[in-house]
Amino acid sequence: MKLLEERILEEGQVRPGNVLKVDCFLNHQLDVALLDAIGEEFYRLFQADGITKILTIEASGIAIACMAARHFEVPVVFAKKAKSKNLDGEVYTSVVHSYTYGKDYDITLAQKFLTPGDTVLIVDDFLANGKAIQGLLDICQQAGATVGGIGVCIEKGFQPGGALLRKAGYKLASLAIVDSMSDDALTFRPQD
Amino acid sequence: MKLLEERILEEGQVRPGNVLKVDCFLNHQLDVALLDAIGEEFYRLFQADGITKILTIEASGIAIACMAARHFEVPVVFAKKAKSKNLDGEVYTSVVHSYTYGKDYDITLAQKFLTPGDTVLIVDDFLANGKAIQGLLDICQQAGATVGGIGVCIEKGFQPGGALLRKAGYKLASLAIVDSMSDDALTFRPQD
Repeated sequence: MKLLEERILEEGQVRPGNVLKVDCFLNHQLDVALLDAIGEEFYRLFQADGITKILTIEASGIAIACMAARHFEVPVVFAKKAKSKNLDGEVYTSVVHSYTYGKDYDITLAQKFLTPGDTVLIVDDFLANGKAIQGLLDICQQAGATVGGIGVCIEKGFQPGGALLRKAGYKLASLAIVDSMSDDALTFRPQD
Repeated sequence: MKLLEERILEEGQVRPGNVLKVDCFLNHQLDVALLDAIGEEFYRLFQADGITKILTIEASGIAIACMAARHFEVPVVFAKKAKSKNLDGEVYTSVVHSYTYGKDYDITLAQKFLTPGDTVLIVDDFLANGKAIQGLLDICQQAGATVGGIGVCIEKGFQPGGALLRKAGYKLASLAIVDSMSDDALTFRPQD
């Protein structure tokens, strides 16, 4: 997606440890017009896949999921990272490893919000090692829901998450794939 | 806001400890059409207040802030609850007490995203004791930003947060104010 690639080149910042900071527009400050264009692009790519629900994980994924859901006209449901006191009833849980923080955390979703009748589009801001998305896939499997597709804004193509998901047969759309990055250069994988 | 009050009556559930569960549409599963109507209502109420930025706190506030920002055509910025490894540079921090969890937590915002030139609309899903919003007000004060208004979806009118904010002179709009609730009855404060 040209618009997103251009924005990454203009405002993204490369930091030590393979960190690509896009906090000016994607995950701390949010450019809602850009997010809406991203949502529209996900709709273009997945509109024929019978999506009934958009699933993401707090916090950065929520904005993207909402702007996509406007176009699909389906509900969003987001997995929580901490077990909330107010989450009563049965829940699905999965364990996600965070490389950024070097630790595991639980994600939780109320069972009533995901059923075998659902066809799910999973969305998130980043895909690197893919552990968060694997956790969401695990929850879909527990629910017996169908995974209609996976949409991420930025994939780090030099980390293994995207390749693993494609090899497993998922329909994965990454709107920008960064194949290499350094302080003074950032290369995107060509896409149609 | 009639639409929100009706939805609370239809799907809200009262739980022990003054908990009003609205997770079907507001803060776990998200009804994006309803959120868009909420965003439009905030725009109607605050469009003349010169808002340049919408400020909220992760996670539930993000969806509401984004849907409001579409109407204001301004960026969203959200305070983070945990200090992120990827938050470099100078940050504003404040301490918020959570009654739900019985503990204090830090909220953090990169300084570059809030300046003395900003006029801020603070939004959140709930207002009860008002501690989260006090934390956001503290961050606005640290930034030297002007608070143009505060918009919340549901105020628990029997808890002190709303009254304190009004007494302090803030322009506070609560789209639904619950004055009392029990297992079988829920009373809204009449509003224009």
